[in-house]
Amino acid sequence: MTIGIGLLGLGTVGAGVAEILATPRGRHPLVNNLALRRVAVRDLNRPRPLQLDPGLLCTDPQAVVDDPGVDIVVEVMGGLEPARSLILRAIAAGKAVVTANKAVMARFGEEISAAAAAKGVYVLLEAAVGGGIPIIEPLKQSLGGNRITRVSGIINGTTNYILSRMAAEGAAYTDVLADAQRLGYAEADPAADVQGGDAADKIAILTSLAYGGSVPRQTIPAEGIDQLDARDVAYADKLGYVVKLLAVSQRIASTPDDDASGDASPAADALMLDVRVHPTLVPRSHPLAGVNGVNNAILVEGEPVGQVMFFGPGAGAGPTASAVVADILNIAGIRQACGEAAGAGLDPLLAAGSWRQCRLIDSALTTHRNYVRLRTSDQAGVIGQIGTCFGQAGVSIQSIVQFEADSEAAEIVVITHEVLEEHFRQALATIASLPEVAAVEACLRTL
Amino acid sequence: MTIGIGLLGLGTVGAGVAEILATPRGRHPLVNNLALRRVAVRDLNRPRPLQLDPGLLCTDPQAVVDDPGVDIVVEVMGGLEPARSLILRAIAAGKAVVTANKAVMARFGEEISAAAAAKGVYVLLEAAVGGGIPIIEPLKQSLGGNRITRVSGIINGTTNYILSRMAAEGAAYTDVLADAQRLGYAEADPAADVQGGDAADKIAILTSLAYGGSVPRQTIPAEGIDQLDARDVAYADKLGYVVKLLAVSQRIASTPDDDASGDASPAADALMLDVRVHPTLVPRSHPLAGVNGVNNAILVEGEPVGQVMFFGPGAGAGPTASAVVADILNIAGIRQACGEAAGAGLDPLLAAGSWRQCRLIDSALTTHRNYVRLRTSDQAGVIGQIGTCFGQAGVSIQSIVQFEADSEAAEIVVITHEVLEEHFRQALATIASLPEVAAVEACLRTL
Repeated sequence: MTIGIGLLGLGTVGAGVAEILATPRGRHPLVNNLALRRVAVRDLNRPRPLQLDPGLLCTDPQAVVDDPGVDIVVEVMGGLEPARSLILRAIAAGKAVVTANKAVMARFGEEISAAAAAKGVYVLLEAAVGGGIPIIEPLKQSLGGNRITRVSGIINGTTNYILSRMAAEGAAYTDVLADAQRLGYAEADPAADVQGGDAADKIAILTSLAYGGSVPRQTIPAEGIDQLDARDVAYADKLGYVVKLLAVSQRIASTPDDDASGDASPAADALMLDVRVHPTLVPRSHPLAGVNGVNNAILVEGEPVGQVMFFGPGAGAGPTASAVVADILNIAGIRQACGEAAGAGLDPLLAAGSWRQCRLIDSALTTHRNYVRLRTSDQAGVIGQIGTCFGQAGVSIQSIVQFEADSEAAEIVVITHEVLEEHFRQALATIASLPEVAAVEACLRTL
Repeated sequence: MTIGIGLLGLGTVGAGVAEILATPRGRHPLVNNLALRRVAVRDLNRPRPLQLDPGLLCTDPQAVVDDPGVDIVVEVMGGLEPARSLILRAIAAGKAVVTANKAVMARFGEEISAAAAAKGVYVLLEAAVGGGIPIIEPLKQSLGGNRITRVSGIINGTTNYILSRMAAEGAAYTDVLADAQRLGYAEADPAADVQGGDAADKIAILTSLAYGGSVPRQTIPAEGIDQLDARDVAYADKLGYVVKLLAVSQRIASTPDDDASGDASPAADALMLDVRVHPTLVPRSHPLAGVNGVNNAILVEGEPVGQVMFFGPGAGAGPTASAVVADILNIAGIRQACGEAAGAGLDPLLAAGSWRQCRLIDSALTTHRNYVRLRTSDQAGVIGQIGTCFGQAGVSIQSIVQFEADSEAAEIVVITHEVLEEHFRQALATIASLPEVAAVEACLRTL
């Protein structure tokens, strides 16, 4: 049974996919059943790194979707439109879709999933998060017996590359960014990466898979690394931490599923989640602390599995193509299992529909550990005043350390225990208004 | 559609599985469709950590397999017999099997797979390797587009716990083993763990999944940590390495699939593999070097994915039960997809049949880096003689370091580059016969 593949896009990832399909030998024998039938490109005359029958190429992506020889539409063009419309068009035609497009799936995942469920087709997206790392399929197919409690990860390779070099070289953000752009690790317009938007897209997707319900992408607070001072990376190091851009999706305890009554009825109330992206101080002994360069890693915590981590290359033609082909093979495999049996349904694990309501908790009600750097006058008693302000707001402190005192000014770094965000903000406002405090210069989360 | 589960065994893992099935709330909704129908135990009267309807228990495992209400047989009793016969009996009755039994699957995997394929049923074994870590399913379902080149891992928690403590405390093997036994991290009879047999079982299973063909379990060379001297752990540390018990399964370059001609015909010749278990010096910067305690990690390398790593708890009731339930859910999911359609086949990814011949290469023809510790007289020129012996055999050396010289004797540690095993053995024989060399005291592999 040959399965026809239509490719939308022949950039880095598309070419990687075409390369795998053209060289099946030594790969899983099911790759032999896949035939590339049509490829939509923007420019027919652009030189390409691989030899491809020119008759396969066209400039009309709709023609690829509509081609009766195409059974699975592979969307690797990126961007919101026309990608979204083409995916919906493929679904409407009863075709399975494989996409690497995190931006579309983070924003229109619910619309696309609903259309796919109605038509009984799969929309798979292993390549949308973590490049070549198997993370989407394991979340769907290997952890369903668990109550997931937290998903946290380093899921943007560009920022991890920049942070790794800032830590290793003590270099400034802008200098490393310029170098990363020169080397091709950062885009000419790096905003989506360095401001945290790309990581927010990805944690939105992981959230919907981990908890069976989505939260609106635009409500996820994201802070990037573009305001990060090399000084804080250096102080973190002195205190035993590395700074990483983490995306975190955490269930809030005391939401319905914590009732371990064994009652199997659907929870009446929504599961409350704390989902966010921000630079974070990670203790050097934490499994995510050693993830450097363009690598990604995702830590999944659940009951009863404990902690499992998935690590690997977060981007690149080969790794991302590996993930796209994995999705294609999953669809081919299940087709072979079910045959052309009329009335065949969808595998609920692979289809990964939504099965409960999730909502973001009010950020004032979240709890976190915090790192604060203050510029103060170097007078005796300042540390005591700061400690008192935190204490009065109910914020307990793990450490206060004074760095770089000179005759006029000092830098004081505070690390708190896990405290209510609301209390922390109150304390910080009081501290900022102290006459001895010149400025709150940095405020980062801490694991 | 309710799916009846029959449990063979209610030990740690079996009780963990029963616990998940009894508390579906907050887990994937498909768990609601699973009903525990019958449980075989050895002793009806033993106190158990969980409440279970006493009517479910029996002492006859065949009765569980034969129960018409049981659709999936979950074998978590361990041991070779009667586990093997019960698995085959379940298959003969057309029932799917989920097993955590690495010993049976490493030895009788081919027989069991052939029977399962003939009957059109799944035999899944996620829990057999890496406890709660999703590794079997990702190998089957997420990496099929790749040509796997190497699988290497820390897949025995007991030995990793012992090695981690030997490294941290400078303690002797026998002392840490006794402590591990007291704490429940090592069995009263630790042979299968510390002599490498358990890791060999697991790498046999990973090999068959990674390469689509198996090698006979009894041909896999396994060396444990029971002869490991704390001195070598300490020297490794000084040289920038940690000692880990690695299981490695590596394809030998220049076997058929490396022909990237795009020729899709099945390879005429067998794929040659180097599969082995031994204590190994791992450079401190390597992803596996930071895996400590009872954790496991498996590094998979392939083209085009590069390196991906899977990390987590390698044992324990909760993690292992998570893996068993994942397998049950996969079977339930695909049943829901295919319905009761007559003629439905098997998903070739999930079923993971063998699709090529694999053979172990003659160990003399493998290449490795090596660590050697020699006891020598402390005479000028000994290092030169040793260097000359290696050089004459074509063994190039990365470093020779003399430790702990006293007036009479010295210890010399040599680390080689990657060299042919045959040449290395020749050189070592010559060196051992030098009058200045009292003994070859340790010989370990190095990554």
